[in-house]
Amino acid sequence: MPLPYLTPLTRALLDGAGVPPGWPFAIADRVRFSEIDALGHVNHTAYLRWFEQLRVLYLREWGISPYDGSGPIVVVKSLTMEYRREMFLAEDYVVAARTASFRRASFEMHYAVFAPDLRAEGTAVIVLLDRAGAGRHALTEADMQRMREVDGATDARG
Amino acid sequence: MPLPYLTPLTRALLDGAGVPPGWPFAIADRVRFSEIDALGHVNHTAYLRWFEQLRVLYLREWGISPYDGSGPIVVVKSLTMEYRREMFLAEDYVVAARTASFRRASFEMHYAVFAPDLRAEGTAVIVLLDRAGAGRHALTEADMQRMREVDGATDARG
Amino acid sequence: MPLPYLTPLTRALLDGAGVPPGWPFAIADRVRFSEIDALGHVNHTAYLRWFEQLRVLYLREWGISPYDGSGPIVVVKSLTMEYRREMFLAEDYVVAARTASFRRASFEMHYAVFAPDLRAEGTAVIVLLDRAGAGRHALTEADMQRMREVDGATDARG
Amino acid sequence: MPLPYLTPLTRALLDGAGVPPGWPFAIADRVRFSEIDALGHVNHTAYLRWFEQLRVLYLREWGISPYDGSGPIVVVKSLTMEYRREMFLAEDYVVAARTASFRRASFEMHYAVFAPDLRAEGTAVIVLLDRAGAGRHALTEADMQRMREVDGATDARG
Repeated sequence: MPLPYLTPLTRALLDGAGVPPGWPFAIADRVRFSEIDALGHVNHTAYLRWFEQLRVLYLREWGISPYDGSGPIVVVKSLTMEYRREMFLAEDYVVAARTASFRRASFEMHYAVFAPDLRAEGTAVIVLLDRAGAGRHALTEADMQRMREVDGATDARG
Repeated sequence: MPLPYLTPLTRALLDGAGVPPGWPFAIADRVRFSEIDALGHVNHTAYLRWFEQLRVLYLREWGISPYDGSGPIVVVKSLTMEYRREMFLAEDYVVAARTASFRRASFEMHYAVFAPDLRAEGTAVIVLLDRAGAGRHALTEADMQRMREVDGATDARG
Repeated sequence: MPLPYLTPLTRALLDGAGVPPGWPFAIADRVRFSEIDALGHVNHTAYLRWFEQLRVLYLREWGISPYDGSGPIVVVKSLTMEYRREMFLAEDYVVAARTASFRRASFEMHYAVFAPDLRAEGTAVIVLLDRAGAGRHALTEADMQRMREVDGATDARG
Repeated sequence: MPLPYLTPLTRALLDGAGVPPGWPFAIADRVRFSEIDALGHVNHTAYLRWFEQLRVLYLREWGISPYDGSGPIVVVKSLTMEYRREMFLAEDYVVAARTASFRRASFEMHYAVFAPDLRAEGTAVIVLLDRAGAGRHALTEADMQRMREVDGATDARG
């Protein structure tokens, strides 16, 4: 059965798509022409755009940031990427995200791309800042509880 | 009923989405974070990327170009755009395409974005070149017949 | 003599670079890797990014919009493009802009790319809106006088 | 004195621009409108594009890959990034690159952005593949010697 695109996938669909357990939030998408570079495959920055897009969906769905000019400013503080196998025009893929650990006003997310084998994985440390400029913006207890229970995230507040 | 994303839509679905008759080829998609510019709305070049993406799908589905390094080279010779109303993050839209007229080795496509009102429309003149460099690559009679019958395109070979 | 990059060029330098008279505002730049698409040449949307970048420089230099969240909102209402000859990685080019005509709160700009022969040209109709949302934002008399005198623009207020 | 843009900078110019010793290859550039995202600052993927662009210049200048469809295929195997301070429209910056270590057919590059304080830094592991598909493409002895002598790179062939 083809996956529905651009919508959070159920665990049953993720099982069918070869996405291993431990990735509760994932969507299906397809490689676009503009993501192919002069070397004929998906450019490495496109994967980071996929991770960014999924992060925006995740933070909107979870109510952490609406990305509408209100709410905390979401800053990428650092990131890592590992590329496993190249991708080509019109390939279907699933991109998945989860929070691996959190502190008071920051968290580390993990990302992966499956098509259906693992094509790339990455991490990003995200910091939340007050829009008014008065320092960091703390996660709520509900955010942290959900990160623990849904994503299996580690509390790293120390 | 929500539209399925990234797959050619049936006329029944297009009717429900407010897409007027005369657009036989259309897909649903959703505005991405990377398409928003510093002014907070979809950048004007993003619409052209949507048209390009739909054009690639169309030419692949019709067998005109596989975009895999074989087949004719597809050149955008000219284009026009009209913007009607701005778009924002996460809006659903339908992008539609049709061939309006054709010559021996070129054709003019029309494009439109509905959400569900008309947000932008455009045209592009496409020229097919032989990959070997020996001039233009002619459309087949089957291509031209399909452009006439499915898209209502005008034969402009004169 | 090589042209200085990213800085408005004098008429003497433009003469040397093959840019015809009538283009008072132009900068030199060089094709980047990310502007090359899967077909191995500069993607057609990259030219529109060059025109956009030069328009931003122009409107900042002329004091029409600082693009810093203050001042009028600059909307691209429509555009046209003509491609003449393809471009490749690391080619040097000059991109030029001028206002061809203006109305009370809108103007039509022309753009061209030389390397040193004409590679592409385009037009864009720009509308200025009040940031507060109260309709259009009029050009000043000084803006219009400068458009007439420097760019040779036509007064189309009629 | 303003820096010349888009051309490898001498050590004297780099000293004046606040770039510390140990960065022999660097160019000046300026933030573009299309690099600003919906949050009003340079998007994190733009820095990776700057690193990519400088890597392409470096590999072309050193004769490792012409990026013209011949020569080895240059694959980004992994990367890391650290962001230090946000950047805005029209800021001037210097982006610098060096090879930190090399093996037989791969090398790790380091990158940094100065404006003039450090804004971001990153690393990338690059693997060279034979275009014909017969495995890896070895660096020449001259490449490795230059990496050692010019960049201070470590021989990690072990």
